[in-house]
This record gives sequence, C-alpha cells and structure tokens, in this order.
Amino acid sequence: MTDTKAIVFDLYGTLYDVHSVVQQCDAAYPGRGIEISALWRQKQLEYTWLRSLMGQYIPFEQATHDALVYTCRQLRLDLDAATSATLCDAYLKLSPYPEVPAALQQLKAMGLPLAILSNGSAFSIDSVVRHSGLQDYFSHLLSVDRVKVFKPDPRVYTTACQALELAAHEILFISSNAWDAAGASHFGFQVCWVNRQHNTFDELGVKPSAVIGGLDELPALVGAAG
Amino acid sequence: MTDTKAIVFDLYGTLYDVHSVVQQCDAAYPGRGIEISALWRQKQLEYTWLRSLMGQYIPFEQATHDALVYTCRQLRLDLDAATSATLCDAYLKLSPYPEVPAALQQLKAMGLPLAILSNGSAFSIDSVVRHSGLQDYFSHLLSVDRVKVFKPDPRVYTTACQALELAAHEILFISSNAWDAAGASHFGFQVCWVNRQHNTFDELGVKPSAVIGGLDELPALVGAAG
Repeated sequence: MTDTKAIVFDLYGTLYDVHSVVQQCDAAYPGRGIEISALWRQKQLEYTWLRSLMGQYIPFEQATHDALVYTCRQLRLDLDAATSATLCDAYLKLSPYPEVPAALQQLKAMGLPLAILSNGSAFSIDSVVRHSGLQDYFSHLLSVDRVKVFKPDPRVYTTACQALELAAHEILFISSNAWDAAGASHFGFQVCWVNRQHNTFDELGVKPSAVIGGLDELPALVGAAG
Repeated sequence: MTDTKAIVFDLYGTLYDVHSVVQQCDAAYPGRGIEISALWRQKQLEYTWLRSLMGQYIPFEQATHDALVYTCRQLRLDLDAATSATLCDAYLKLSPYPEVPAALQQLKAMGLPLAILSNGSAFSIDSVVRHSGLQDYFSHLLSVDRVKVFKPDPRVYTTACQALELAAHEILFISSNAWDAAGASHFGFQVCWVNRQHNTFDELGVKPSAVIGGLDELPALVGAAG
C-alpha cells in the first residue's frame, strides 16, 4: 500500500451485510430466510451484470426488486406488493459489519479521505449510510447512476478518480466481492480484498494487492505503508 | 413465429447438455460430480459476463479452465494438470439432448437454414458438433471470437445478422439459457426459450416470443407459422 491518497469502499457486502435481510425474509417466509437471501443476492448481481452487457441499465433498486420477484417465483413462494415493499425496503436499512464503525474511526483519524463507490443509487447509498449513522466518515458517496452501467465496467471505477481528483494507483479500493476486487485491480487501483468467509478468490486474471479477514485489519495495513 | 427466414441455436445447454460432464467429474472425484458440474457451469458463465464487462476477453476454453480451477479450490479438491485436461476436454465432447438429432432433421427438411451462435471458440463449436455427428445440419457455426465479447452483448447477436444477411426480426433464436434468450429478445430476434427443467424465466425486462419444453416441439411451432 504505497502512494495511497484515499480509500474507496464498496458498500454491499463490504461495509454492510447484505444478508442482514435474512431476518425480514424469515419473518415473511418462516424457515426460508437464508435460502431466499442467498438466491436473491445471486440474482441481484447477475441482473446488474446482464443488464450492463445488454445495454439495458436500470437503477439498482429495480434490479433488487426484479431479483426478488424471480427468487420467489423460482422457490414457489407467493409475493404480494406489501411483502415486496417490506423486503426491498430492508435493503435500505442494512447493518454494517460489527467491526466497521471502529475501523472507519481509526482510518479517519489517520487523515485519509474515505469514500464509497457503489452499484446502489445515490438515494440507496445515502439511506443505508445515514440509517447506520456513519455518514460523517465519508467525503464522497459515489453511485454508478452517473455512468448508467454497473461494476465491474471500468467506467464505474473512473468516476472515483474523477471525483477524488486522483490517479488510479493513488486509490486503495476495498471490496469483499472478489469480482469487484478483480475489476478494480484490472482498472489500476490498489486493491484490498476483505475475505470474511474464507472464500476462494475468483480466477479472473489478477490478484488483489492485499487480503484481510475484516475491516479491523485495515488501519494497520494502511499505517504500515504510511 | 412470422417472417422466420433462419433458425439460430445456442449451443451450451440448448443443443448440448453441459452437465454431460458429470460422469467425468464423478470419475475424478467420486460422489462429487453433480456438485462440481453445477458450480463449474455457474462460474464459467459468471467469468464470461465479468470478463466482458471488464474489457478482458479471453477464449471460452480459458474461462472454462479458470472456472474449474476456482471450483476445485472452493470445494477443497486437488486438481492436477492431467485431471484438468481430462475434464476440460469433456467440454469438447458434450452430448446433444436426446431429442435434438430428430428435431434438426425435421427442421432441415422444412427448408430453413440452421445455424449455431455460441460463446465457444470456433474450435470448440466445431469439435462438439463433429463429435456428435450433427455438422451437416448447420449452414453456419458462429463464434463470439469474431467480436471478442460474450453474450448477451448485442455485438454477438449482430454477427448472426451479418453472416446470414438477415434482419434481426427474420431470425428465430433458440436458447435454454434465460439470460441469453432475454439478451436476444432485447436485440430484436424472435426468441424461443427451451425450458426443459420447468425453471422460471429471468426478470430482465422482456419475455420470449415462445416457450417449449424440448426441441421436439420446435418443428410444429415453426410449421404452424409457415
């Protein structure tokens, strides 16, 4: 981690736990929460990739909604409008991972600008960050809405360079999503992959600059190179 | 199905069963064949989408190989070079679905040109088709290699219009992959989705023109509109 002038975080799955919706899924469909959340997330991602490739961009909330509709149909579960609204609303109130607030506080104290670059719309990002009370840590909340294509299209990562007025190699990008970390590495960011679940990094022709088990390990990593 | 002047087929999962590699997977890793084949196929598709979005195209065989490496690492299975070669080679010798040869014969007799448009390289497509002895049914075997991006990027579907010298609406495109059928529909093809496993069509903003349960239903569908 040399030359780092700003830290840019992915939001979904990195700072905030997308599977914190399991509880609401379980309330709506008792005993099925984990299964619903897993397929919902998988399809949500697929729809962002496929929509981008087709040149048929839609806001992230729409992809989230469409993925929920698919999930319930595929699992043969009835989905009425009220349940759909409740579950999609849960994506606006995700919980940060437990170690995140303290890690952000330490990183902020080190004097580096912190930003978020997310597939979410500006409204979604703002909602999630404010709901968790973490808004004061970030200088920039950046949405793919500006370029109307999803990660890992390089146009998305470019928006962070433009907003922060930095070269790609001056940005340390943090993501738990291996495909996002790979896209950011190909783009030219320094990349730290957060591997909380002991997963295998994807075989996409590039490796992250660093791997950590949680955000609590990030201040030491950044400090060691400072 | 009006105005149809040619029928263009997807290959992997539509004419040929990608899970016919289960047997070879099971021989290499007893009892794990189904699990390996499912994750391998999922990752193979993801890598084609992600590589396309990143602007990091590789031939389909490389994506197939990379997905196998990921799969074995994630499932904590040792993968030596010989096993990797054997399993990847199985993708060059896929079995057609049982009803496919007779359906192609009937369609050919109806006088419409038949073609394949596939994510595979020209070598892979040719290998699979010749291994099954079905090469004489097709006037064109079209690979994404020409445009160096994978489906569902519209540039792929364009190659079929160019090769067949037809407008998009004059082509009937056949795929079992809902995301491929959706991409082809957005592009402007007439599309028939082959739903052998009673799956749910993806929520990607478009519906196929027709749905059939197997290729044996296709001659009647085409004939009825002729």
